[in-house]
Amino acid sequence: MALIQYLSRIQFEFEAIGTLAEEITRLGLERPLLVTDKGIEGTGILQRTLDAARPHLPVVYTGTTANPSEACLETCFELWREHGCDGVIALGGGSPIDLAKAVALITSHGGTFRDYDVKTGGSVEIGQVSPQIAIPTAAGTGAEIGRACVMTLNDGRKSIAVNLNMVADTVICDPELTVSLPPRMTAATGIDALSHGIETYLSPSLNPPADAIALDCVNRAAGWLRRTVENGDDRTARFQMMMAALEGGMVLQKGLGSAHAMANPLGEAHHHHGTLLGILLPHVIRFNEAAVGDRVADLNRVAGISEVETLADWVADLVRDIGLPVRLADLGVTADDLPAIAVGASNDHLSLTNPRRATVDDYQKLLVAAF
Amino acid sequence: MALIQYLSRIQFEFEAIGTLAEEITRLGLERPLLVTDKGIEGTGILQRTLDAARPHLPVVYTGTTANPSEACLETCFELWREHGCDGVIALGGGSPIDLAKAVALITSHGGTFRDYDVKTGGSVEIGQVSPQIAIPTAAGTGAEIGRACVMTLNDGRKSIAVNLNMVADTVICDPELTVSLPPRMTAATGIDALSHGIETYLSPSLNPPADAIALDCVNRAAGWLRRTVENGDDRTARFQMMMAALEGGMVLQKGLGSAHAMANPLGEAHHHHGTLLGILLPHVIRFNEAAVGDRVADLNRVAGISEVETLADWVADLVRDIGLPVRLADLGVTADDLPAIAVGASNDHLSLTNPRRATVDDYQKLLVAAF
Repeated sequence: MALIQYLSRIQFEFEAIGTLAEEITRLGLERPLLVTDKGIEGTGILQRTLDAARPHLPVVYTGTTANPSEACLETCFELWREHGCDGVIALGGGSPIDLAKAVALITSHGGTFRDYDVKTGGSVEIGQVSPQIAIPTAAGTGAEIGRACVMTLNDGRKSIAVNLNMVADTVICDPELTVSLPPRMTAATGIDALSHGIETYLSPSLNPPADAIALDCVNRAAGWLRRTVENGDDRTARFQMMMAALEGGMVLQKGLGSAHAMANPLGEAHHHHGTLLGILLPHVIRFNEAAVGDRVADLNRVAGISEVETLADWVADLVRDIGLPVRLADLGVTADDLPAIAVGASNDHLSLTNPRRATVDDYQKLLVAAF
Repeated sequence: MALIQYLSRIQFEFEAIGTLAEEITRLGLERPLLVTDKGIEGTGILQRTLDAARPHLPVVYTGTTANPSEACLETCFELWREHGCDGVIALGGGSPIDLAKAVALITSHGGTFRDYDVKTGGSVEIGQVSPQIAIPTAAGTGAEIGRACVMTLNDGRKSIAVNLNMVADTVICDPELTVSLPPRMTAATGIDALSHGIETYLSPSLNPPADAIALDCVNRAAGWLRRTVENGDDRTARFQMMMAALEGGMVLQKGLGSAHAMANPLGEAHHHHGTLLGILLPHVIRFNEAAVGDRVADLNRVAGISEVETLADWVADLVRDIGLPVRLADLGVTADDLPAIAVGASNDHLSLTNPRRATVDDYQKLLVAAF
């Protein structure tokens, strides 16, 4: 049975940030909480966003950590109560966007984050959450259009809440906000976007609208990622990569695959998600190739891959060309780490939507090949 | 500025109707009102749907007219109050689906339909409406995923309400329900779906996800419409056309064009929408050709059109091959009707999203060419 869903209102254009005041008004917010991090505060992006919010005066929280924690959430909740906030604006990469979802959830539902964990069934109880606006400053995760948020609990464990009601009411994609992103982060986030298109398209469930958007995502990432990394000031390239990332986020509901299933446990050790995917994806594509029929040919066509090259080799070459590591060992992963990662990957729910069933043993072999 | 939106939960598969009871429960409905028409009642489809709803027992209204009227709406509202209904199920083509939207609107908001007319600004006031499930029995309008509904008021005028909050909460697309549709209706509704893909793709606003889905819509309709008309029992063909229709409905938010702008005033005289589009579309494509750059080449590629044929000629040939009229005169339109239609088309809001500006004079020429 195919289940197909799309949810969002997205303003997309250079200078789209200029719609912020109007979108705040549209949601009826009197006192939004703006959630961001020190990195964004250090650039001009925060000030620019506050200028665009006028006459609205958001309360600002800049303490978001790289993996947002329950402590961040608690501080935000205190700010919310203290200032009588009524909605949340996320500004940044995946971390502030995830934190904002958690804020929207807890301020509307009460309780603690773990009450809403997807694994314990708490996520299905999530109803309408506080109003949210998401403003991404990188082109990668697609979190701006996502329904999930990951939090590191006070006891160190990770908890994930997933519900369509957590999708941001409004997304503002302004490629200008990504222009200052350094090449390494541009490369890693771009590979994340590309991987969403590729893994989604190869995932076997029936969702033609997602497939169509996934092919467009791969087409854009294949055509523009090299150029975006080489010249971060290329506005056309930034635009195209931001669209690819948004499209990747729109389609991953269809199902991801084994590269993400391995990246999740590897990411627990704070390795960058996109960097991991660049290393893992070629191996997973080779593993899946016999199980996906002519789907690889479709990807080859939209990515402009010549007949003498394979999709796996093309991804590996791209990852190398844009300056990203190509082996897990380059990230400090050790051979001793691999067996536990293999178990974690096989238990990850994203493994279920890989086109070919991958056992613990298969994951061990894939990890060794990528090591 | 690009504004991109998608909204829906869609069950899509043969036997998807079997999810109805579960979807009713999921929406928390105790007493849904099922809105359909005499045509559907006469087939086995209504009984099959009621069987699938068990243990739920919908109140059934079968009086929907071809262009749903305020009188239908008033009767439904009476049934709703009498039986204490709490949600609406639409079963049928565009008419019951439109009527169900109006029921969802009025039962939640009160007032009369014209209070919510888009032209008088009433539509923007529409908030959350009563829960809705849409079950299409034809592959064409895409109304199952639409945000608009058209009603014929008691004074004979048409009124349109448009708001995202009117999109059905759940859509159940079961291609089996379309298998008994006669060839002529299969052809006309299929051309409607194809026209949504083509006009949307050629419309100039920026919406790459819509463009990607539109190309997939055209690919499916081009590949399968002939076969569906020739052999209505071909289940694969029925599946593909139902997907094309759904995709057409998902994308038309991007903007349609002059074929729809003319079909609207022509439809006021009760000519069938899809039949009109088949006649008009080739002429509009020729009119637009110089304004759309390489977009026609993209459509040619996905439709599998040879290099010696044009898109306009290919559409005209398809319309003829599947047994539809190719001239407005065949429908009983007279030359005297055309000037008023040209004025109506130029005032239609869908004319605004045509890739080339069309004046009253342009519309007059297009109508004469199609006459």
